[in-house]
Amino acid sequence: MLNYQRYKRVPVINYPERQWPYKEIEKAPIWCSVDLRDGNQALIEPMVVEEKIEMFNLLVKLGFKEIEIGFPAASQIEFDFLRQLVERKLIPDDVVVQVLVQCREHLIKRTFEAIQGIKKAIVHIYNSTSTLQRDVVFHKSKEEIKEIAVEGTEMVKKYMDGFDGEVILEYSPESFTGTELDFALDICTAVQDTWGATPEKKIIINLPSTVEMTTPNVYADQIEWMDRHFKNRDSIILSVHPHNDRGTGIAATELALLAGADRVEGTLLGNGERTGNVDILTVAYNMFSQGINPELNLENIREIVDVCERCTKMEVEPRHPYAGKLVFTAFSGSHQDAINKGMQAMHERNQEHWEVPYLPIDPADIGRQYEPIVRINSQSGKGGVAFVMDTFYGFRLPKGMHKEFADVIQAISEKQGEVAPEQIMDEFKRNYSERKEPIHFRKCQITEAEDDTEFSTLAKVRYTDHGVEKVFEGVGNGPIDAVQKGLEKALGIEIRVLDYNEHALTSGSGAQAASYIHLLDVKSGRATYGVGISSNITRASIRGIFSAVNRLFY
Amino acid sequence: MLNYQRYKRVPVINYPERQWPYKEIEKAPIWCSVDLRDGNQALIEPMVVEEKIEMFNLLVKLGFKEIEIGFPAASQIEFDFLRQLVERKLIPDDVVVQVLVQCREHLIKRTFEAIQGIKKAIVHIYNSTSTLQRDVVFHKSKEEIKEIAVEGTEMVKKYMDGFDGEVILEYSPESFTGTELDFALDICTAVQDTWGATPEKKIIINLPSTVEMTTPNVYADQIEWMDRHFKNRDSIILSVHPHNDRGTGIAATELALLAGADRVEGTLLGNGERTGNVDILTVAYNMFSQGINPELNLENIREIVDVCERCTKMEVEPRHPYAGKLVFTAFSGSHQDAINKGMQAMHERNQEHWEVPYLPIDPADIGRQYEPIVRINSQSGKGGVAFVMDTFYGFRLPKGMHKEFADVIQAISEKQGEVAPEQIMDEFKRNYSERKEPIHFRKCQITEAEDDTEFSTLAKVRYTDHGVEKVFEGVGNGPIDAVQKGLEKALGIEIRVLDYNEHALTSGSGAQAASYIHLLDVKSGRATYGVGISSNITRASIRGIFSAVNRLFY
Repeated sequence: MLNYQRYKRVPVINYPERQWPYKEIEKAPIWCSVDLRDGNQALIEPMVVEEKIEMFNLLVKLGFKEIEIGFPAASQIEFDFLRQLVERKLIPDDVVVQVLVQCREHLIKRTFEAIQGIKKAIVHIYNSTSTLQRDVVFHKSKEEIKEIAVEGTEMVKKYMDGFDGEVILEYSPESFTGTELDFALDICTAVQDTWGATPEKKIIINLPSTVEMTTPNVYADQIEWMDRHFKNRDSIILSVHPHNDRGTGIAATELALLAGADRVEGTLLGNGERTGNVDILTVAYNMFSQGINPELNLENIREIVDVCERCTKMEVEPRHPYAGKLVFTAFSGSHQDAINKGMQAMHERNQEHWEVPYLPIDPADIGRQYEPIVRINSQSGKGGVAFVMDTFYGFRLPKGMHKEFADVIQAISEKQGEVAPEQIMDEFKRNYSERKEPIHFRKCQITEAEDDTEFSTLAKVRYTDHGVEKVFEGVGNGPIDAVQKGLEKALGIEIRVLDYNEHALTSGSGAQAASYIHLLDVKSGRATYGVGISSNITRASIRGIFSAVNRLFY
Repeated sequence: MLNYQRYKRVPVINYPERQWPYKEIEKAPIWCSVDLRDGNQALIEPMVVEEKIEMFNLLVKLGFKEIEIGFPAASQIEFDFLRQLVERKLIPDDVVVQVLVQCREHLIKRTFEAIQGIKKAIVHIYNSTSTLQRDVVFHKSKEEIKEIAVEGTEMVKKYMDGFDGEVILEYSPESFTGTELDFALDICTAVQDTWGATPEKKIIINLPSTVEMTTPNVYADQIEWMDRHFKNRDSIILSVHPHNDRGTGIAATELALLAGADRVEGTLLGNGERTGNVDILTVAYNMFSQGINPELNLENIREIVDVCERCTKMEVEPRHPYAGKLVFTAFSGSHQDAINKGMQAMHERNQEHWEVPYLPIDPADIGRQYEPIVRINSQSGKGGVAFVMDTFYGFRLPKGMHKEFADVIQAISEKQGEVAPEQIMDEFKRNYSERKEPIHFRKCQITEAEDDTEFSTLAKVRYTDHGVEKVFEGVGNGPIDAVQKGLEKALGIEIRVLDYNEHALTSGSGAQAASYIHLLDVKSGRATYGVGISSNITRASIRGIFSAVNRLFY
């Protein structure tokens, strides 16, 4: 029996003035990556220097303008890494490096040694302010805790004197979500005043949910309360730093943005202590999916995943939003069918906006066009196979053909489990487009009469029958009809073309066409599709007929 | 460059009457597991029958009273599985099996064949209602879409005639979040009326976020709007079925509960199509962490993870809330220190309520007491090592000893990376409690005088020095003082005891005690701790002195 009585409800705030539920996210916040600090610190194997540099370069490439690189005063490794960034000139002019430090003089002094030679740095000081930590960790009163923050601010000012570059101060009341709001405001305001923040010299006030403790709406209430109670709000950049202990870090971030946050600290793919920091990628892709410019260069998620997996030695889980292997799959037949129809509708309408059921974004837009979008298993419906053929290989199978070909794949998947797109294509060739024996189309000569009559087309077809070269001629109202008639006589069969489709596979003059012929064996009543491919649409059709005949009679 | 202009903003609703931001979650909803349907359908390797039965039995054990087992009319495998459940009598009397079916007569007929012999079943009918699917998939008007739902309801009523058990109807307007609210209300009400729902014969109206499309507050607005616009609300069980495309499925569920939902459909650990269904475990553990009875038997998460990983062949990712391997770790030194202090404060205060920084719940409460809670690496602070010693082995190292022992472990972690708790314990023995050479304490005889004077204690100690058996005697104001004096004379050293701590390792008369002696070598100024263990507190202390002397002088 779960001992739930051991836990107390975390208090919510009574804040009927809240306005955030009326808001929508309109633009991207300032992003700050803490991959090299929070993220790195939570790894079983922390990154070595070359991995840190690879990660740093990725973050720069993605467009992060603020990057927290570590706690250089507390760790020689992080000190050395920062020096390498400076000495190897790896920090672009428009990127601000951020360093974390406790409010202690020797650490702040050392921090300024670490940032020597940097043009602009964010010095990020913090102390823990929550009721619990004041009580069990620090044994200090509110005034004493506030004094730590104020003194830290003064020390930063003091050491700025000997520093050539520009310093932006960031202050975090760590464990903010467990702190009384009025005290959090009081301590932040004291730091703001001590620093002398102005609209031109803004201070970053960062309000972390160091441990996620409540439903995300409560965090939003806390952020909005702070947002509206700050004095000189225009001298503050309001930053949030959410974690994910309750699995709602993304939501907390989004609601905090509604509530007035200007800036988000997080990591790629949500690496970080315990359940991780907020995943900046998901927040950004969520904006993207709503037509909002995320102000990050996220068009190649595969590269991001590659670098992150290599540097962190952790794998991205298959259901991770946007990045996971399975998130652009559809196993259910009805989902596959709807996706198929949605794609088709977009295609037919020449529609600019993306709107496809079950696919919130076009995977191709984030660099996943070559990944399996639909995996076919024995529970997939007929739509899935058609979707793979269309999306991967450009074959728009006629509707009537979906089930026929899906049955072929289903028989395989019942034996082996999942069927990869490559195998589906192989089966398509084997069963249709390369089904060329025993009667094998070789060459044809089509003669069209000038008038359109029942007998306007003469087809002279050279083919092999069980390896023996033969010729037939047929006359009809078009090449298909003529070839059909000729074949009937040559082979002694009675067939009827039930359906015919053809489309270009690529564009341009050398483009190939695919032709789909639905052919009935009149005697048996059986029907099947045949497929032919050629850069010549007539030859494609004739090949389609041969393919169908081979399937029907041999 | 990300092509964000391709995407349209999903409309939010203008609903200033919303009350959910004022609410708190007060109790658990009705839980319905869809692991065997949504979950199974999204697996690369769907479960075989025996795995389905293992999963079903787990769900029953966890206390689920409503379990969707599949779509028996659409799949022979799922039909057979349901028949097995019935025939092997695996469905307890208080568990209701739920079956999904489209609104088509032959499927509903077949569904009733599948549930023959069941006392009570939920028949779950659905059709897709969103603007997008009506347009691109079904090409039907609102009235036609509504007609599908109404006819489905009538067909269920019709086939109930030949069915012995009780049927509860569930209706889902699939893709609800993409449906106009007034139309969703209209279609649900039509089904409700057709079914003849009453407070005694409630209908389940399930409002899925089939694809998560907006920030979770918008879903809450939609749910509350429906909740407040339903007629005869007391004849409805309002169910939600969230997915996780934007990574906010947990939040959407929690806010929907604030907004009036009575019931949640989801899966264990969030298995399900694409990014998965909502993870019922996290929602339930979140409630648990706030002192709310989650009404599920979740005290052994390791067993749940075991069964899920075996049946789904998918691994739980290391940062998954509550279940992941890393979520009860703390790599940061300051976090470890705060956890340590929090644990200590709870211990000292004999506190009932759990309140420890960075650990929202006691891992032991959910069956993780034997897992590594803190992993020590080269960036861990001194608190982490002390925490492992305390939590795993019950040694409450005195504060002054934390750094000394942490340095020992840090030297190892710099070479090998992470250090496991077992290895920390081994090093503790090797460096302290088993540091017994070259001077090895054997036996002692303590004689206490009746009065408390500087010379009240006589210690006669038998020991070996480089293997040679020797004896010394010492006199002092207590056993430690007496042994110290005797050792000084015997070994020709000058030492001082700077600190002394001792505590029982276990309770009861046979309990062992651990003694920590901080010993100064007066001549060199060096100091170290020694540790002794014994069921006799005096012998433990003497061993501690010997341990320290061996560390200081040899």
